[in-house]
Amino acid sequence: MTGYSKDTIEAALAAVSFDGDGLVPAIAQQHDTGEVLMMAWMNRDAVAETLETGRVCYYSRSRQTLWRKGESSGQSQALLAFRLDCDSDTLLLQVNQTGVACHTGRHNCFFNEVTDDGIKTIAEVEIDPKELYGE
Amino acid sequence: MTGYSKDTIEAALAAVSFDGDGLVPAIAQQHDTGEVLMMAWMNRDAVAETLETGRVCYYSRSRQTLWRKGESSGQSQALLAFRLDCDSDTLLLQVNQTGVACHTGRHNCFFNEVTDDGIKTIAEVEIDPKELYGE
Repeated sequence: MTGYSKDTIEAALAAVSFDGDGLVPAIAQQHDTGEVLMMAWMNRDAVAETLETGRVCYYSRSRQTLWRKGESSGQSQALLAFRLDCDSDTLLLQVNQTGVACHTGRHNCFFNEVTDDGIKTIAEVEIDPKELYGE
Repeated sequence: MTGYSKDTIEAALAAVSFDGDGLVPAIAQQHDTGEVLMMAWMNRDAVAETLETGRVCYYSRSRQTLWRKGESSGQSQALLAFRLDCDSDTLLLQVNQTGVACHTGRHNCFFNEVTDDGIKTIAEVEIDPKELYGE
């Protein structure tokens, strides 16, 4: 995937139902294993850049800026498919994750499981966050 | 899964980071195939009921009420695992879907794919919505 045409990007932007803050939630799923890697948010510019470059770009609500996944850590996501749900208000991205998706160094972000023995960590850190982001 | 203890439910409610509207997005994934079925929202009561009953209950933002998945359609979701992400502001539910997840009668909600030939429907209707919801 090296990116979609301008017409396609315009059609996608017209189809997505952004919320009152101009955002839409995007779920990233590893295309071959089905692993749900993370959920983050996109604004119009993030959707456009993702479709244009074929590399996933979110919108960081805390930093209020585009968040090119992997720009600090190198752990980028190549876009393989871009899907909208029935209400066009949630996106499902089929991606190929380089390295790990989570800033904690785990492969995906959903490593806290509710059990009757408390909330358990069910995945190991694969890469030390100090390695990902420097000291 | 027949439901968690009261202590566990309290611990989960304390751990989840609900947004300014008191809601948290919840992704439902079919536990054995990895298929992402849908994304919907939960409030505190929906989280508590889901954990208590072992049957997934969302919060309908349009109807502003608890939405016991399958109560109209019979297409319920049995909860097999309840996970929080690294920021505790998104949930991933491992479920066993009865029938179809989408109100359009498709197995999952993410059936619109952006392609350079337009936005294509990539999944067939498996059950006529008239059958799901009556005329």
